[in-house]
Order: sequence, then structure tokens, then C-alpha cells
Amino acid sequence: MVVVDVLRATSAICAAFMNGVDKIIPVGTVEEARAYKQKGFLVAAERDGLVLDFADFGNSPYNFTPERVKGKTIVYSTTNGTQAIQMASSCYKVAIGAFTNLSAVCNWLIHQNRDVIVLCAGWKNRFSLEDTILAGAIVQKLIAHAGFRTECDSALAALDLWSLAEADILTYIDKAAQRSRLRKNGLDDVIEFCHTLDLTNIVPLYSEGTLVAISEPVSVC
Amino acid sequence: MVVVDVLRATSAICAAFMNGVDKIIPVGTVEEARAYKQKGFLVAAERDGLVLDFADFGNSPYNFTPERVKGKTIVYSTTNGTQAIQMASSCYKVAIGAFTNLSAVCNWLIHQNRDVIVLCAGWKNRFSLEDTILAGAIVQKLIAHAGFRTECDSALAALDLWSLAEADILTYIDKAAQRSRLRKNGLDDVIEFCHTLDLTNIVPLYSEGTLVAISEPVSVC
Repeated sequence: MVVVDVLRATSAICAAFMNGVDKIIPVGTVEEARAYKQKGFLVAAERDGLVLDFADFGNSPYNFTPERVKGKTIVYSTTNGTQAIQMASSCYKVAIGAFTNLSAVCNWLIHQNRDVIVLCAGWKNRFSLEDTILAGAIVQKLIAHAGFRTECDSALAALDLWSLAEADILTYIDKAAQRSRLRKNGLDDVIEFCHTLDLTNIVPLYSEGTLVAISEPVSVC
Repeated sequence: MVVVDVLRATSAICAAFMNGVDKIIPVGTVEEARAYKQKGFLVAAERDGLVLDFADFGNSPYNFTPERVKGKTIVYSTTNGTQAIQMASSCYKVAIGAFTNLSAVCNWLIHQNRDVIVLCAGWKNRFSLEDTILAGAIVQKLIAHAGFRTECDSALAALDLWSLAEADILTYIDKAAQRSRLRKNGLDDVIEFCHTLDLTNIVPLYSEGTLVAISEPVSVC
């Protein structure tokens, strides 16, 4: 299982690990995040793109600076992404996918050699274009390898949408609803970063309530 | 609201009205269909593509011949389509959309001049490619008219998929899962019919538990 929430949760999680965070505890509800804050944890939490008043910072990948996160444990709660991670939590293994670790996460999936589900966080239970094209990019890399195939209409549609977006992702994604939501709130400085491929070989994995990172050798993809 | 289930429920409903059916009563469950049969109604009912044992016939558009349906009331229950119609039943107005009445249903939507939702029946709560490209075709026709626009990612994705399918629908749809399911059961004789554009100007409308037909002048689209 791969959870994707390109704008911005899974991109931010990858950024945090790139900057040396030790662990991330994803929580679904505002109440859980508040309870962790009261226990003294560093908390990153937002709803609808805006930082919650009790949180230390919000959901931009740029918030997870080395100065803030290196060697720390961070509690993290977002509008869609962290709920999706919790929804996935009973699966065999759960990885965090972003454009920034695309090849690494595909590499990891290929090494697992199991059935794959890509869970797009979307927006409040709705379809989102940026998550879907990332899903399509994952499908493309997997089916390029022997042993992976799909007969799933949503995977095939994601692959087709990725084929339209691949040559110029930023232009394609300009029409996405979440792109407009972030622009409206002045939070669209992260668009380019969140759609940049392969900035890291880190794959965050979810295990027993916590995200920790492994590094994949970038060889297969 | 437009309900679409290209393979095969909404295509079959349009075919039935083309062949002179008077009314169609869509029912969600097998039990309801059986109860209507016991009351003496003509019942078309299938699950997973196969005709139910108590039903008079199944879900192929070719089953709704003039000899069988002309002037009659038919009770109809399918795997996905009739549930979708019932799900939509509380909406302002509910129309039945198919490739075979594409321009007519868009014409009707343009005349309504209200917000539009296209409800894709899909397959057991999953995404389906053939319903999505029909949704994209509807989006394309609507936004070509002043007053209609969309900021919905799923509508934009459907439009993009339709742009890939439009030039050769049958080749595009060959990869769809429902295409394979029908082929496996020897029920794929309807593929070409169900993807033929504008065979009729009839728009079936759902009102108080029953589908009846209006005819749209084919002028706007």
C-alpha cells in the first residue's frame, strides 16, 4: 500500500525525513493532535491549509526545516493525508509516496513483489488530480517491470492522465482544485517542490502508529 | 443529475424507450424485483451480467425488443445502474444518460440551466472507465456552452480521458474491466451499440419511482 497526498501531506513527510526528522506520528483528528501537544510533543497540524492555533507549525514542506525537525519526533495531522494513512494502517505494509521520492517508493514496491494499492488521499473524500497523476506515475514504473500488471480501471485511467501530464507536470496541474485552494490562501509556493521528481531516495514506512524512514538504493527504476 | 451506466443499464433503458416501452420501474434489490414479478409485472433483472432465474429477461439492450416492451411497464434491476438511480432519487431532477442519447441529454441539461452532477454507476462502488469517458463527453458538451464551467477535478479528469477516447471509443474502451467481464460471459455483443453516439433524442427521466421518456429537439448540441 502506498498513500499519496501530493499537496501537501506526503510531500511534507518526505521533506521532513530529508531534513533528518527521527519519527513522525500521524494522527487523524484535531483532538489527538491537541492531546499530544499537551504532552509536550512538537505538533504540525492544519485544516483546510491553515495552521491550527495550538500547533507549532503547519503543512508546508518548507516548515520542516532541519533546525526544527532534525532528530525529533513530530506529531502530524492534516486535512486528508494523515486520515488516509490511518485508513491504510491495517495493511501488510504502508509506504508514503510523493513525486519527490517516486523512484525510491517504486523501487521499494518492486522489491516487495506483492500486490499494490495506491491510496490517493484526495480532498475530503473527493478525487484529486495531483494525487491521481502520481498514482499514474507509480503504475507506469511498476508495469514497466516484469511481474506487475493491472486490470483495474482506476489504475488505467490514472496512467492515461499521467501520460497527459508527464511532459509538463506544472502546466497540467495548474487546473487542479487544490492548486486553486492553495493559491487563494497564499500557500502555493510549494507547488513546484511538490511536483519535482526524485529529490530523495527515502521511503517513509508506517509501522505501529509511527512513520520511520528507510533509504532505497535507487537502481531499479 | 445524470446517471450513467454505459455497460449496460442506462444504455438498455434508452434502448427500451427507443422501442416504445411505456414506463420503467428501477428497483435496487433482487427482493424488490422478485416481489414485482409475483405481482405479475414484466421483470428485467440481472446480477454480475447474468439473468436472475425469476426474471423475464436480463440487461442487454437487445433484450428490450419492441415485441417485448412496446406500451408496457417493465420492472428493472441491475448490479450497479438501478442502485445509482435510486441513490440519485432525491435530487431535483434525474435523467438517464448513455452514449446513445448523449446530445439529447446534454440538450436537456442546457435547457435546465442548473448545476449538474454526473453520477457514474461504476462497478460495485468502483470507478469504471466507460462511465467516466461518457461523463467527460457530457462535460465537453456542457462547457462548450456559455454558462457552464467546472472546477471539479473529477470532471476535468473525465474530460481529459474523453479527449483520449473520443477519436476511437471502441479501441480505447477495449482495456476496461467491464469489457472483459462481458466478454468472459459472452455478453460483449452490445459493446458497439452501447458506445454509439446519438441514436435517439429520447431522455428518460426519473420521477416518483418511475422512468418515463421525453424527447428533446436535437438542436443545441
